[in-house]
Formats: sequence, structure tokens, C-alpha cells
Amino acid sequence: MGFFQKLARAVQRNESLLCVGLDPDPDRLPAGLPAGQAGARAVATFQRAIIEATSDLVCAYKPNLAFYEALGEPGLEALHATLAAVPDDVPVIGDAKRGDVGHTARAYARALFDGWGFDAVTVNPYLGGDSLAPFLEREDRGVFLLCRTSNPGARDLQDLPVVTGHGLPARPLFEVVAERAKEWNTRGNVGLVVGATYPEELGRLREICPQMTFLVPGVGAQGGDLEASLRRGLDAGGSGLIINVSRQVLYASQGEDFAAAARRVALALRDEIRRLREAVLSGRP
Amino acid sequence: MGFFQKLARAVQRNESLLCVGLDPDPDRLPAGLPAGQAGARAVATFQRAIIEATSDLVCAYKPNLAFYEALGEPGLEALHATLAAVPDDVPVIGDAKRGDVGHTARAYARALFDGWGFDAVTVNPYLGGDSLAPFLEREDRGVFLLCRTSNPGARDLQDLPVVTGHGLPARPLFEVVAERAKEWNTRGNVGLVVGATYPEELGRLREICPQMTFLVPGVGAQGGDLEASLRRGLDAGGSGLIINVSRQVLYASQGEDFAAAARRVALALRDEIRRLREAVLSGRP
Repeated sequence: MGFFQKLARAVQRNESLLCVGLDPDPDRLPAGLPAGQAGARAVATFQRAIIEATSDLVCAYKPNLAFYEALGEPGLEALHATLAAVPDDVPVIGDAKRGDVGHTARAYARALFDGWGFDAVTVNPYLGGDSLAPFLEREDRGVFLLCRTSNPGARDLQDLPVVTGHGLPARPLFEVVAERAKEWNTRGNVGLVVGATYPEELGRLREICPQMTFLVPGVGAQGGDLEASLRRGLDAGGSGLIINVSRQVLYASQGEDFAAAARRVALALRDEIRRLREAVLSGRP
Repeated sequence: MGFFQKLARAVQRNESLLCVGLDPDPDRLPAGLPAGQAGARAVATFQRAIIEATSDLVCAYKPNLAFYEALGEPGLEALHATLAAVPDDVPVIGDAKRGDVGHTARAYARALFDGWGFDAVTVNPYLGGDSLAPFLEREDRGVFLLCRTSNPGARDLQDLPVVTGHGLPARPLFEVVAERAKEWNTRGNVGLVVGATYPEELGRLREICPQMTFLVPGVGAQGGDLEASLRRGLDAGGSGLIINVSRQVLYASQGEDFAAAARRVALALRDEIRRLREAVLSGRP
């Protein structure tokens, strides 16, 4: 079963467009972890508890490799333990944002898809089509291209006005990336990363790519607008979005009740997304 | 001592602009490795032998993390063993091409600079200034921004014509990246990655950034033009280039003489670069 099919089933089963980002920061782990655990071992225990408390509420998990790599080899063991805790029917998006020349990209695709076993990954498009090919070839896996990211610096390059033809108005670079993504999507396994912090751009991208799935970070700690993201980002069928929230769920409580608190926040977010989605769909002409 | 100072000393000591890329492919390891070694352990033995045979001929080493990550945790042990074999006075550039939003970029910077201890890294600029800040802040480390990469797909986005002002001619995106790199270079620790496969673009970038150091992959297996790269890329002082070669050195022989063969190729390349450099400088007005 391909990634997008697995995702669709999880969306339906859990009635959820919520993805929980597994970005563990050892400095923010709850005090309520079993006594004596620290560092990478505590991270693994923490993540397992979060997953057990939320796996019926999400459509996917998204571990960001940076946070595990920052802990060195024990961090990678923690990632192994984390992935082992995810139920088989919940897809996992490896947020790696890799991008390299062809034969190196092939090594990254092997590391991420075969080594870690991610159902999907995020990739950086700056190196162009041949750098993405080793990922795109894996048609059972999802490939999310960074398009319009959630951070303030996204403007620096992604908004640059690009000339696309004689007499045509210039278009921002991220729109051109979206057009390229459609061309590269010959196997139907391409998605885009679009920050919830820029709902207008999200709407523009939905016009360009009416049928593509967008992975949308930036809700929660980064201040993205959930209602506007759904209004502008949902596709014609009322789907096509994966709303990622990380810190707001992970660090819902610093006490012993951290897992229950994470569940409460995830449940509230899941239901808020459902409610807003229904309001958006019922308001459509 | 900062990266660029360490680099300058190695350039001078070894009279070399050659960087050897440590991109181990387990399928291409020489048959002449000690009997019974396979996988990541063989990689470590192989790399140590390559480093011992070439460390007086190079200005830097550049391991690409993809090739180690593709081997899983044993691959990371092989990277540890590889880094331990590099003499303290030879700088190591971690070719990681990372790029992520601010607080995640901070985790990557920690992983690469503090965990692995790289003297410099490569980063992807697509996410903009705040994604680079955690790297740039480390003024003792070098930060090479992907600008015009060596692969065919580099054209897809990096050459897109960008409008830079009313009435001004459009400029390719990679030139705009170079302009931004100058702005971001407030601590003097920024360099650019520019493929030897595009000498014309290299020359253009030298005009834009007369004093920046360029990390130049693409000579050797990728077919880049060494003479043209030196002619167009050397700065006014006859420096400012790090010429990276990977496979041509690593796989110089498949026999027991692989290390000696790697040395012969590295020596020939080092001397060819010296000769061409002198010819270029003597031909300048």
C-alpha cells in the first residue's frame, strides 16, 4: 500500500487531519518521566508515551531528524524506539529536508526509506529534478517538496519574483516550485510543504495544485492560522491537508500527566480541525 | 583558530587546493581490504587508509553524510572512525546540505558542529536567512551555501530569472543567492558551493563575490573542467577555491594497492591544480 493510500485510511479511521511532529528537545522533557532517565533514553520513553496517548487521533507522525541527530548515536536509537512504537497503520513522515546531487540523493533515499523505513519524507527542491528522482522513483513513498516554508526567512528566496515568460507577470519562486512539482509528479506521490503562517500563499498553491496534498507546519508555537489554512487549503473534496503540530502537543504538561495532557491537546486540535473543516465546507458555494 | 584560517594554513603547508571527498560506497570498496571485513567496518578501514595516504596532499576533507547514513548506525561509527583518522591540522567540511526552520536548524548546527565536530558544513539556502543564522553564528566554523550546484538539475531552479528591480535585467536565482550570501556574511565565515561543471557561472560568481571562498565539486567523475574552473574561479590573490574530488581518488584502484593508487591520483591532481594555477596567474594582466 502506498503512502497516500495509507494516509487516506488513517485520515478516515481517526477522522483526523492532525499530524503530530515528534521533535524531542531534551531540555523540555516533562519532569514526570520515570526517575533516573535522562538524555536519549528519556526521549525514547517520552515519545513512546506520546504515541501511545495519541495514535488514534492522528493521520500521521512526523519526526524531524535534526532533533535526534543533535543527540548523537543515542538519539538515533531513540528514533528507532520511537518508530517501533508507531502502529503499523499510521504513516510516518521523515522530516529530513534532504537535497543533494543524483548519486548522493540515492544514498539519502536509501537511508530514509530503507534504513529508517519512513512512509514519506520531506525534501529540498533547490538542486532540481535529478536530485529528487531517487525519491520520486519510490512510488509507494510520499515525497513532500519544501515550497513555502513556515519561517520568517521563507521570504528571502521563496518570494523572489521570477520571470516565467515574455509579457507575463513575474511569479514568486515558490509558485514556480509548485509548477515544477506538478511536472515531477508523474507517479502521483508528490506533496508540498506549505506553512500555516502564510494562508494567502497556501490558497494560491491550492489554485495551482488543486489535487496535491500539502503538509502544513506552523500551527501552534509558530502562530499559524488554522481556520485560514483550512479555508484556503482544503481541496475540493475537503481533504488534501496534513496539519502538523509539534510543541503544543509534546509539551502540553511538564508534570506526570504529560501523556494525558498531550492526548487532551491532540483531541482538542483534532476536533477543532474537524469543526473548522465542516464550517468551511458548509460555507462553500 | 577559525575554519578559514585553518584552511589557509593547510593550503599553504600542503601547497594544495585539493579537497578529497570521503563518499564511501560499500559496493565500490577495493577488493584489497583486509580479509573478512565488510559493510561499515570495511568502510572505516578503507577511509583511514585513504586519509593516511593523502593527508599531506590536501587542504581539506569533505565527508558527505548521505553515504554514512545509508549504512545505518554502523555507518555513523565508520564516520567517527574516519574523522578520528584526520590529522588535527587538516580541516573537515561536513557535506550535509541541511536547511530547516530556525529552532530546528539550531539542532542541526549542534549535531554537525558539536556532535561531529566539523570545521565547516554545507547548507541549503532555500529557507532563507533565519534558517542559516544558527550556523552563521558560529564564527569559528565555515558555512558553505549551495549556490550553483554541479548536477544537471541545477538549472531547474537555480537558473530561474529573477526580477531584482524596476528596469533592471533579470538575474539567475543563483546570483541572487550569492548577493544574499554577501549580506549574510557579517562574520566572514561564509563560502559558496559552485560546481566545476559550470565554469561560466563560476566566473560570474567570482565577479559578484571577489573575496569569498568557493567549494567546487564536480571535477573528475562528474566531468567538470579543472582549467576553466581555476581560470574563472581563482580570486585576485590566486586562492579562494577548494577543488573537491571524490570517486576519482577513492576508487583509483580496486586492488591491494588502493591506498598507494589514491595517493598517486591525489598527488597528480594536487600538482595539476598547482601547474594550472600558476599558468592562470602568469597569464593574468
